[in-house]
Amino acid sequence: MVKIGGNIIDDEQLLSSFLKKFAAISDKKILIHGGGKLATRMAEKMGVSQQMIDGRRITDAETLKIVTMVYAGYINKNIVAQLQSVQCNALGITGADGNSILSHKREKGNIDYGFAGDIDRVDVSWFTQQLLSGQTLVVAPLTHDAKGQLLNTNADTIAQEIGKALSSLFHVVLIYSFEKPGVLQDVENENTVIRKLHVGYYQELKETEKIFAGMIPKLDNAFKAIEAGVEKVIIGKAEELDMLISGNAGTTISHE
Amino acid sequence: MVKIGGNIIDDEQLLSSFLKKFAAISDKKILIHGGGKLATRMAEKMGVSQQMIDGRRITDAETLKIVTMVYAGYINKNIVAQLQSVQCNALGITGADGNSILSHKREKGNIDYGFAGDIDRVDVSWFTQQLLSGQTLVVAPLTHDAKGQLLNTNADTIAQEIGKALSSLFHVVLIYSFEKPGVLQDVENENTVIRKLHVGYYQELKETEKIFAGMIPKLDNAFKAIEAGVEKVIIGKAEELDMLISGNAGTTISHE
Repeated sequence: MVKIGGNIIDDEQLLSSFLKKFAAISDKKILIHGGGKLATRMAEKMGVSQQMIDGRRITDAETLKIVTMVYAGYINKNIVAQLQSVQCNALGITGADGNSILSHKREKGNIDYGFAGDIDRVDVSWFTQQLLSGQTLVVAPLTHDAKGQLLNTNADTIAQEIGKALSSLFHVVLIYSFEKPGVLQDVENENTVIRKLHVGYYQELKETEKIFAGMIPKLDNAFKAIEAGVEKVIIGKAEELDMLISGNAGTTISHE
Repeated sequence: MVKIGGNIIDDEQLLSSFLKKFAAISDKKILIHGGGKLATRMAEKMGVSQQMIDGRRITDAETLKIVTMVYAGYINKNIVAQLQSVQCNALGITGADGNSILSHKREKGNIDYGFAGDIDRVDVSWFTQQLLSGQTLVVAPLTHDAKGQLLNTNADTIAQEIGKALSSLFHVVLIYSFEKPGVLQDVENENTVIRKLHVGYYQELKETEKIFAGMIPKLDNAFKAIEAGVEKVIIGKAEELDMLISGNAGTTISHE
């Protein structure tokens, strides 16, 4: 499973070369994509003002309409068509399709995120059936509440939840595409990639404050996925996908 | 199989009540939807001028982007989410998904239609597999050329081609949603619905000019579908879906 974000999606050439590498993976595979800048540009063009709190988009009704068009329409279908052109039989979905990912609207706390979904259930048998029929799934970051409402859902979280759910049946490797070549010891120096990370070493790095604070939520989530059964989480540049998989680049997070 | 167009899609209440009736059909089913006015409104908002020739949209690159967003994103996923809310397990697709409908870019003749697709092949086994797994397919009017290009494709034609292809394995009934209650003998009088139409009677009506000229291409296509193995084509108002199916409304076109 590979999750890609805006830095790949927004760059046509980077995306095309990434998709070729992704198509070449011979194992069963799932691609989860985020949104990128196109949704923001579309909102500007349509005069819908975007509210961001702590880097998260607040999804009001008009914004939900835009992300449904951009994520599930434009980005998802263009990725599918491109994968088909390199002999990768892709099926593009949201969590509403096949009732594959059920969520509920996030409760209003201090912040009202609007139409944002927190995941309740991933349908393992649905994913398994589609994968076993030889298809590659391309997942847009939208889920549904089974009451007719689509909900904007964080792509990192979708990747993690699908990974955890499928780990009961498959050996799951979860790859997070990242702007940096991996988890860095010194955030200013790309040559300080931590190549292997397991629970003990991670605790040590946290205690001695040798890890960039901004990475901690992401890494905590990665370790939760490992505890839930995911075999490996790999963090690194999507451009180096083949090397990430072979273990020759990025940060590999595992039990041991 | 039911094809719906703009008159249903553009009216939230009509669409919602139609989808409930559609969900209640117990047989395996496919919904093919057109575009509606939303794509035109989006194009206006985004300052993309729309060229229409003989009622057909010319699909330039910017227009393709818009219809991909609106048809495959907004309309398709909202229909899927609504069907899920009435216990109909829907999967929304374009012809690129699962490589289900292959087409080629229409050759430039007197008119250059741009990114418009003419269908080459419907993957019967793909459709069969998805239907047999208990899913209802919701098809947006886009196909692909297997070279990475999405193509805008007429929804009536998609419905017809899927119907013809599936008729080798299933008894296919093809329902075309229409503004009028059926094929009318007198286009000004909605009480003149022709209830049953077969080849002989159709020829007679054509020869005696007792049929509205504008209906002839649609009916010629319906008879082609019948010749290719489709059991019945029914034309009528989507609001009367249950009555169309039971044979108590609309025009039913068949061999005999």
